Amino acid sequence: MWLICDPVLVNGVACKNPGSVKASDFHFRGLHMMANTTNPLGSGVTPVTVTQLPGLNTFGISMARIDYAPWGINPPHTHPRATEILVVLEGSLEVGFVTSNIENRHISKVLHKGDVFVFPVNLIHYQKNAGKTNAVAIVALSSQNPGVIPVANAVFGSNPDISNDVLAKAFQTSDDVISNIRFKF
Amino acid sequence: MWLICDPVLVNGVACKNPGSVKASDFHFRGLHMMANTTNPLGSGVTPVTVTQLPGLNTFGISMARIDYAPWGINPPHTHPRATEILVVLEGSLEVGFVTSNIENRHISKVLHKGDVFVFPVNLIHYQKNAGKTNAVAIVALSSQNPGVIPVANAVFGSNPDISNDVLAKAFQTSDDVISNIRFKF
Amino acid sequence: MWLICDPVLVNGVACKNPGSVKASDFHFRGLHMMANTTNPLGSGVTPVTVTQLPGLNTFGISMARIDYAPWGINPPHTHPRATEILVVLEGSLEVGFVTSNIENRHISKVLHKGDVFVFPVNLIHYQKNAGKTNAVAIVALSSQNPGVIPVANAVFGSNPDISNDVLAKAFQTSDDVISNIRFKF
Amino acid sequence: MWLICDPVLVNGVACKNPGSVKASDFHFRGLHMMANTTNPLGSGVTPVTVTQLPGLNTFGISMARIDYAPWGINPPHTHPRATEILVVLEGSLEVGFVTSNIENRHISKVLHKGDVFVFPVNLIHYQKNAGKTNAVAIVALSSQNPGVIPVANAVFGSNPDISNDVLAKAFQTSDDVISNIRFKF
Amino acid sequence: MWLICDPVLVNGVACKNPGSVKASDFHFRGLHMMANTTNPLGSGVTPVTVTQLPGLNTFGISMARIDYAPWGINPPHTHPRATEILVVLEGSLEVGFVTSNIENRHISKVLHKGDVFVFPVNLIHYQKNAGKTNAVAIVALSSQNPGVIPVANAVFGSNPDISNDVLAKAFQTSDDVISNIRFKF
Amino acid sequence: MWLICDPVLVNGVACKNPGSVKASDFHFRGLHMMANTTNPLGSGVTPVTVTQLPGLNTFGISMARIDYAPWGINPPHTHPRATEILVVLEGSLEVGFVTSNIENRHISKVLHKGDVFVFPVNLIHYQKNAGKTNAVAIVALSSQNPGVIPVANAVFGSNPDISNDVLAKAFQTSDDVISNIRFKF
Repeated sequence: MWLICDPVLVNGVACKNPGSVKASDFHFRGLHMMANTTNPLGSGVTPVTVTQLPGLNTFGISMARIDYAPWGINPPHTHPRATEILVVLEGSLEVGFVTSNIENRHISKVLHKGDVFVFPVNLIHYQKNAGKTNAVAIVALSSQNPGVIPVANAVFGSNPDISNDVLAKAFQTSDDVISNIRFKF
Repeated sequence: MWLICDPVLVNGVACKNPGSVKASDFHFRGLHMMANTTNPLGSGVTPVTVTQLPGLNTFGISMARIDYAPWGINPPHTHPRATEILVVLEGSLEVGFVTSNIENRHISKVLHKGDVFVFPVNLIHYQKNAGKTNAVAIVALSSQNPGVIPVANAVFGSNPDISNDVLAKAFQTSDDVISNIRFKF
Repeated sequence: MWLICDPVLVNGVACKNPGSVKASDFHFRGLHMMANTTNPLGSGVTPVTVTQLPGLNTFGISMARIDYAPWGINPPHTHPRATEILVVLEGSLEVGFVTSNIENRHISKVLHKGDVFVFPVNLIHYQKNAGKTNAVAIVALSSQNPGVIPVANAVFGSNPDISNDVLAKAFQTSDDVISNIRFKF
Repeated sequence: MWLICDPVLVNGVACKNPGSVKASDFHFRGLHMMANTTNPLGSGVTPVTVTQLPGLNTFGISMARIDYAPWGINPPHTHPRATEILVVLEGSLEVGFVTSNIENRHISKVLHKGDVFVFPVNLIHYQKNAGKTNAVAIVALSSQNPGVIPVANAVFGSNPDISNDVLAKAFQTSDDVISNIRFKF
Repeated sequence: MWLICDPVLVNGVACKNPGSVKASDFHFRGLHMMANTTNPLGSGVTPVTVTQLPGLNTFGISMARIDYAPWGINPPHTHPRATEILVVLEGSLEVGFVTSNIENRHISKVLHKGDVFVFPVNLIHYQKNAGKTNAVAIVALSSQNPGVIPVANAVFGSNPDISNDVLAKAFQTSDDVISNIRFKF
Repeated sequence: MWLICDPVLVNGVACKNPGSVKASDFHFRGLHMMANTTNPLGSGVTPVTVTQLPGLNTFGISMARIDYAPWGINPPHTHPRATEILVVLEGSLEVGFVTSNIENRHISKVLHKGDVFVFPVNLIHYQKNAGKTNAVAIVALSSQNPGVIPVANAVFGSNPDISNDVLAKAFQTSDDVISNIRFKF
């Protein structure tokens, strides 16, 4: 609010003179609408970060709605700049995260309507719809620009490829398995 | 997660050895339940901060559900340590905040289901149920311990009182008016 | 000092090439002069923040002189980005702040020449000249741009108004009382 | 240095009275010695973090030596709390990192003796010995406690397992492939 | 204020339950009194940091009064954790600081009553009474625990000594000159 | 990586769109080469900071190689924005730092190949080649722009001079000694 820097960018986003901000700068519409979940993962995310709501810039918070088709997943990923807190609005979710090396403990829980869960900053985490009906969650993240690194996409779907021998050694499998997995991305 | 300090406190809250955290440390139950709104303000808050969910400690985020009876208000207040982002789940809300001196601009908006709004850190803000039905919002705050300072309570309901002459001069009114307002707190 | 960004703004203020800074960039003149206190509050503030002294930018500190006519007050206000430390140069002051909800404890003290007092970040605080002579204080704040939110102005003097029914409910009083107070702002 | 908190822990590590620190508190011995690289990955890390050198606590920096057997790899991993800067002392390395979603760009380079490379905080990165001789690197990290999350171990080697159906969907492969990969961890 | 950690230490200082703080926790008495300046430097400092006023802990600010006998100096020093802002209450001061390598620019100014000057964090700076009468300044620092490193004492008066050959080379002078200077410390 | 601000500067350095970064933005060549040490100090530094490697911007880390001729020194200096961690690659070094006032403790150690040592942020420190052969160290610093203040240059070699009487009083010596030392700078 106290940034007087238009037309200069802060964190890559234009900021406005506090004397000229309008209510619409702090407003986003549409989080009541279900996202499209007809994809291989069976989930869809509607983000409300600084990209969608520029007034969030410098405020260290953002929000998103996640929709899950029956048995859909939000696959293992990290947010490089945010802890996440999630509340279940509809349905049931199996959620989990993995602690850092060398323990790699898998902390997981089945959540129901009204349940809240926390995914600590930078840890790999996921959610899975644990039921036959759609599920809906609202999440908040401790950055206006949390970022997302889906592990499978980053490792097997990067552009250009990470070479097969690196991945074969890392995953302790054969070049063929790596090539097969990569083929889908 | 990486705090190994039990039984010592960090930020006044016990932290745990990452080797012994359990899923329940990151879990809170009950945000699907309506809070009691039969009070003079016509609103009720169910907080999920580090007090209710110790696993939030050091993570810079928290959540709350706010229920509003018809025409109920969440009165003008500040959060000394957090920006707030709000999404309307049910009903309609009139919301607003006031920018700092010397402009004291009142930025306000009527929100409907699915609308998101941002209240910048430390600015005085409020919400009011703008309709005849109950309203529900989920908010997230950029601190695990955001704090709340309801302006009316801090100024007129402090313990002990701020002296009448200070308030009469500040509000440019008479001692009698100050005494009358204070009487309710 | 190490910002090489002219003519770009940082925090909304021009910063300079360290190779071209001059002593005048770090210098402000006039804190020995009494401010005008012939106003309804009986006080006047001479700020030395990044607005008056651009060389303060990014340094996290600022200063001000406050003058108080006999019985004058610096009314209840918050600084959204700073803790304040005050030293009394002349006269006596009654000072206080209120802790956050739900305690709303009023911590106060009468100060004399040479006394120092601390107002924690974001808490509502005030000073009142407790004597028949002028009083003078020097304060320092933990931000180059501390901001100020005078509670009465923000709530009753915002532009446009916060609606009467919100304030009447918040202050648990009638529309008439709210209108009367607002009239002065 | 200015922490006077023994026997209390800060960040989970005992800190000392600055009046009683000794040179040995700031000293670590042995970074000239090659680590064991006879393992499936063909690499070995000798860390100098707050665990090995408690005097680093609160200082935001650490160091490590990495040894690589011919064709050995340091597999794709993230540091949840640090950027990394690497200098090649001996041999040649192929190094790379992947930018965040949705671009997932793979930025890579072949490095020789004396080359320096930067791996931005939280991005998945790796190194591979690109030659027939041993390679040696010194790295520094922007945290005294950077942490490490090896992607393959966290996803396929967590304890307990992440369920097969989550991983099969995330990696768009079959349960059998997942089970086979997991078997090695 | 919101630290609930007694009897644990934060930053090496006991913190208190906000429910039990008293006004005296935020109060210091005596900054109207002149410090003793009958010493070789002809100056005296009365600090109000977290050591004298524990309520400053975590607040990022402190204050001090400096008295100068005629021609007295506050010798070249750094504050490892704070920028300093100074206001002259009585007399005249010649003040200066030196920018970092490789320019080593000396920025200086003669100040009179009411003048304010800023010394950027960590730069070597000094003040000298430029007149025949006592001078008085109030300074504020952007840390509750700013620290002070007087260059001459650290280099020539350390315990034990830095060896003569290091200092002779650094100051490009002879062992004898170094020994003579050291003798006074 | 997530700064989208070209052609605007952040911290005085151009930043790039993450969509257009190239491997060369994160790459520096030449740390295997010995610096010139034929100077009065007998040492030479090859820095890899944001000046040499712009991709370091905002990452809070940098690196340098230091070469020492036999008996050469890296003279007493501070880094105003960084802690330093050093590893000896070749030879032996005597290293030390001095704690802040009023103790001014000199913490020192003789280091050999493979030894690591830490110099806490802002404290005056030095290294000296303790042997008859060249010595080499790699250091990392906890800032992309650590800065350096060589004490002797800042105090005796500033431009313009700090006046002789200030330095004579500070070092408790005569004007002549000050003039003689200053003559070399």
